[in-house]
Amino acid sequence: MLLGEMAPALLTARFQESVTANALRAYLAEFISTFFYVFAVIGSAMASRKLISDAATDPSSLVLVAIANTFALSSSVYIAANVSGGHVNPAVTFGMAVGGHISVPTAMFYWVSQMLASVMACLLLKVTTVGQHVPTFTIANEMTGFGASMVEGVLAFALVYTVYAAGDPRTGPLGVIGPLAIGLMAGAMVLAAGPFSGGSINPALAFGSAVVAGRFKNQAVYWVGPLIGAAVAGLLYDNVVFPGQAASVSGRGNSEGIGL
Amino acid sequence: MLLGEMAPALLTARFQESVTANALRAYLAEFISTFFYVFAVIGSAMASRKLISDAATDPSSLVLVAIANTFALSSSVYIAANVSGGHVNPAVTFGMAVGGHISVPTAMFYWVSQMLASVMACLLLKVTTVGQHVPTFTIANEMTGFGASMVEGVLAFALVYTVYAAGDPRTGPLGVIGPLAIGLMAGAMVLAAGPFSGGSINPALAFGSAVVAGRFKNQAVYWVGPLIGAAVAGLLYDNVVFPGQAASVSGRGNSEGIGL
Amino acid sequence: MLLGEMAPALLTARFQESVTANALRAYLAEFISTFFYVFAVIGSAMASRKLISDAATDPSSLVLVAIANTFALSSSVYIAANVSGGHVNPAVTFGMAVGGHISVPTAMFYWVSQMLASVMACLLLKVTTVGQHVPTFTIANEMTGFGASMVEGVLAFALVYTVYAAGDPRTGPLGVIGPLAIGLMAGAMVLAAGPFSGGSINPALAFGSAVVAGRFKNQAVYWVGPLIGAAVAGLLYDNVVFPGQAASVSGRGNSEGIGL
Amino acid sequence: MLLGEMAPALLTARFQESVTANALRAYLAEFISTFFYVFAVIGSAMASRKLISDAATDPSSLVLVAIANTFALSSSVYIAANVSGGHVNPAVTFGMAVGGHISVPTAMFYWVSQMLASVMACLLLKVTTVGQHVPTFTIANEMTGFGASMVEGVLAFALVYTVYAAGDPRTGPLGVIGPLAIGLMAGAMVLAAGPFSGGSINPALAFGSAVVAGRFKNQAVYWVGPLIGAAVAGLLYDNVVFPGQAASVSGRGNSEGIGL
Repeated sequence: MLLGEMAPALLTARFQESVTANALRAYLAEFISTFFYVFAVIGSAMASRKLISDAATDPSSLVLVAIANTFALSSSVYIAANVSGGHVNPAVTFGMAVGGHISVPTAMFYWVSQMLASVMACLLLKVTTVGQHVPTFTIANEMTGFGASMVEGVLAFALVYTVYAAGDPRTGPLGVIGPLAIGLMAGAMVLAAGPFSGGSINPALAFGSAVVAGRFKNQAVYWVGPLIGAAVAGLLYDNVVFPGQAASVSGRGNSEGIGL
Repeated sequence: MLLGEMAPALLTARFQESVTANALRAYLAEFISTFFYVFAVIGSAMASRKLISDAATDPSSLVLVAIANTFALSSSVYIAANVSGGHVNPAVTFGMAVGGHISVPTAMFYWVSQMLASVMACLLLKVTTVGQHVPTFTIANEMTGFGASMVEGVLAFALVYTVYAAGDPRTGPLGVIGPLAIGLMAGAMVLAAGPFSGGSINPALAFGSAVVAGRFKNQAVYWVGPLIGAAVAGLLYDNVVFPGQAASVSGRGNSEGIGL
Repeated sequence: MLLGEMAPALLTARFQESVTANALRAYLAEFISTFFYVFAVIGSAMASRKLISDAATDPSSLVLVAIANTFALSSSVYIAANVSGGHVNPAVTFGMAVGGHISVPTAMFYWVSQMLASVMACLLLKVTTVGQHVPTFTIANEMTGFGASMVEGVLAFALVYTVYAAGDPRTGPLGVIGPLAIGLMAGAMVLAAGPFSGGSINPALAFGSAVVAGRFKNQAVYWVGPLIGAAVAGLLYDNVVFPGQAASVSGRGNSEGIGL
Repeated sequence: MLLGEMAPALLTARFQESVTANALRAYLAEFISTFFYVFAVIGSAMASRKLISDAATDPSSLVLVAIANTFALSSSVYIAANVSGGHVNPAVTFGMAVGGHISVPTAMFYWVSQMLASVMACLLLKVTTVGQHVPTFTIANEMTGFGASMVEGVLAFALVYTVYAAGDPRTGPLGVIGPLAIGLMAGAMVLAAGPFSGGSINPALAFGSAVVAGRFKNQAVYWVGPLIGAAVAGLLYDNVVFPGQAASVSGRGNSEGIGL
C-alpha cells in the first residue's frame, strides 16, 4: 500500500491500532532487541579500541566488529521475530512501510523505540566503562559524503532485501533460517564497507552513538543512503522479483508482521 | 510460579520428583554439556595466552575466545536440549526457576551439576597442560565492581531472554535454530564486554576457574549481576512481552523442560 | 540430459522458455545476489588492504575475506533460492547444465547476469572508494598455472557437489540449511587455498575484478579448473553417489530450479 | 549390539552386506567428504604457515584453522548425511560400531575410505603447492603423550556424543541443524586444544598428514585417545543418558545409517 492512498480517517484508525496492547508489546520487543544489538556492536568497537590503540588499522578489529554484528543481529531478530517482526533497524522499518507491510503510525513508534534503545545502550556502555570513549561512525578521509551515503545505501538495500526474502511465505521451509541469513548479510556488508563508509547500515546505531558521543558529523550519511536503499529494496522485491500474489502478501503480514 | 507460593508439603513432593531416573539423566546431561562448554571456553583462553603473552591487548584473542563461546554453547545446548533443556548455566537455571518452568529443588541439583562440571573441566585442563595457568575472569582496572556486575547482568539478561524465546512453543518453526541463537547471543555479548567486565555471563564458568586457580577476587560480580539479570529476563518475557497463555506455557514445559 | 541430445528444434523451444517473465525474474535474482556477493568479497579484500599494507602476509586478512565469503554466499544463495535456484556462480550454473537441471540457453543468460553483476559491483567499489585499487586474484609465485587451476577445480568441485546435495529432495528436512552448507563449504575452501591459488572458486568474481582492474593475467586459471570441477561434481553426484531416480530428479527441478 | 554377540556366520553375512551397491556408494561418500574436510583443514594450516612464519604463536592462525575445521566439517557431514551418515572420521565410525549402529565389516571399509581420502588430499596439497611443507599434528613441549592423548580423547568424546545426539530421532526437529552442531563442537574443541595436543580429533587427519610428511612422531596420541573417547561417548549416550528404546534406535539406523 502506497503512502498516498491513506485518507486522514484511515490514518486515525491506524493510529488507534498503533496503541493496542499487542502494538505496545511490539514496541517493547523492538526496544529490547535493538538495545541488545547496539550494546553488542558499539560495545565490540569499544572493546577493540581498548585492546589496541590503532584499531583502525587492524584487520582483527574489523573481524571482531563484523562478527559481533552478525551474531547480535541474528539473535536479536530471532527473539523479536514473533512479536514485532524483528526489524531492529529504522531502515528496515521504513522499507517495510514503503512496501505496505506495516502502517505509517506503527512505523513511527518503531522508530522511536529503536532510537531510544540505541541511546540507552550507548549511555549504559559509557557509564559502566567509566569514561571510555563511545565511538561514532566515520567515513574514510578520501571518500565524499555522497559516495559514503551510496555505499551505506547499497548495504541497507542488501539487508532489507534479505529481510523481505526471509519473511516471505513463498520462501517455504527456508524461512526457518531467516534470522541467520539476515545477520550473515549484515556481517558480510560490514566486512566490505567498514573502513570506507563506516558500515553502520542502521540509522539507529549511528544516531545513538552520535548522541552519547555528542558528535553528529556526517550523520546524514547514515540516514539518507540507508532509507533510499531500503525503499528501493522493498519496491523491487514486491513488484519486480516477486510480484505480489495478494494472498501471499497478506499471508506474510500475518506470519511476520506485528499482528496488530 | 513464585517461590513464596510453595508450601513445605509441595516442596517435599517436588524434591522426590527431583531424584527420579529421568531427573538424574537430566543432571548428567547438564554435567556433560557444562563440562564441554567450560573446557572449550577456559581452554581457548589458555590457548590464547600460550600463543601470545600479552593476550589481553590483542583483538584476535578476543575473537578466539568469543567464537569458542558461541561454538561451544550452541553445540552444548543442542546435545542436552531434549533431556535437561540445555541450560549449561546457573543463571539460566535461576531464570527458569523464577519463571516457574523448573522446580526449585530440581534447579538446585542443576546448579550442583553445572558447578561440579566446571571445576572438573578446569582441573582437567590444569593437569593435562602441566602447570599452565588457569585464567580467571577479571574486570578492567578503571571499572567498579558495581559497574562490572551491571554489565554482566545485561549479558545474562540477553542470554536468558534468548533462552526463553528459543524454548517458547509460540516461536514455531524458528525453534529449530534456537540453540544457534543462544550461542550467537552469548558470543556477541562476550565480544562487547570481554575487556571490560570479563564476559563470563555464566556463574559456573567463573566459579570453576576461580576454584582451580584459587583466586576468588571479584567472584561476586559474576553471581550477583547475572542472577538479577536472569530473573528480570524471565519475568519480563513471561509477563510483559509474551504474557502467558496457560496452555502455551505448559506446552513449553513439555517440549523444552526436563520432563520430570 | 546430456548436451548432445538436444535437437535444434528443441533448442529453439528452450530459447523461448528462456525469455518468459519467470525466466527474466530469475536472471534479475541472479544479478542481485551476485552483485551482493561480489560487493562483499571484493570489498572485504579492499578493506583488508586499506587496513594493513601487507595484507598478503596476515592471517587475519585471510580470515576476514573467508568469513565475508561464507556470510555473503549463504545469504545471497538464500535470497535467490526460490526464484533462480541461487547459483551466484557461473561454475555452479555450468555444473547444473551438465546435469541437465537447467537448459543451455537459460544457463547462458544466467552467465551474462552473473558477469554483468560482478563488473557492476567492482565498478561501484572503485568509484565510491575514490581510486582505491581493485584487487584481482593471483596465484602464489612458486605455483604453476596448471597446479593453481587444479586447486581451483577442486574448490569448485566441492562447492558444486554441495549445491547438488542441498537441492536434492532426498536430502529431506536437511534441505532447510542448504544455503548455510553452501556458504560454509566455500569459506572453508578459501581458507585452505587463498594464499596459493587465490581462492576465487567463482569465475564471475575473477572476471569482474579483472575487468575493472584491467588486469587479466592468469584469468584462465579461474575458468578452466572451476568449469571442469563443476562438471565432474554434477556427473558424479547424479550418476554415481546418488544415481538418479527419475521422479526425484524432476522433483528437484521443480523445487530448486527456476521453474520455467 | 556388542561385538561379542556376532557369530562367524553373521560376520560373513554382514561382510556380504558391506559390498552391495548402496554400501559402495556410502564408502565413496565418506571418501569425498573426508577428502574435502582434510583438504580444508590441512590446507588452512599450510595457508597460515605461508602467511606468517611463526604461525605457532599467532592467535589469528588458530582462529583460521578452527574456523576452517567448523566450516568444512559441517558442510562435509551435510553432503554425506543421507548416504553414509556423514562420519568423516574413523573415531566417529568406531563410536558408531561400538553402539551397534554400523556393522564391523562396514566400519572397516569406512576406515579405509577415510584414510585413503586423507592421504590423497594431503598429497594433492603437497603437489599443487610445489614443495610447501605439509604440517603434522604435534603436542606442546611440556605435555606428556599420555596427557595429550587424554585431551584428544575428551575432544573425540565431545564430537561423537554430538554425532549421537544429532542422529537420534528423539532429537526431533532439532535434527535439522545436526551437521552444524557437529561442526561447531569440533571447532570449539580445536580452539581449546590446538596449541596443547594439536587438536586433531580425527585419526584420519593425523594419519594422512603424517604419511605425506613422512613423520609419525606421536601418531599414537591421535589414535588411542580418540578411539577410547569415542567408545565411551557411544556407550554413555545409548545406555545412560538416553537409554535405548529399541524402536527409536532402529529408527535412527534407518534415518541416519547407511541403509545397507
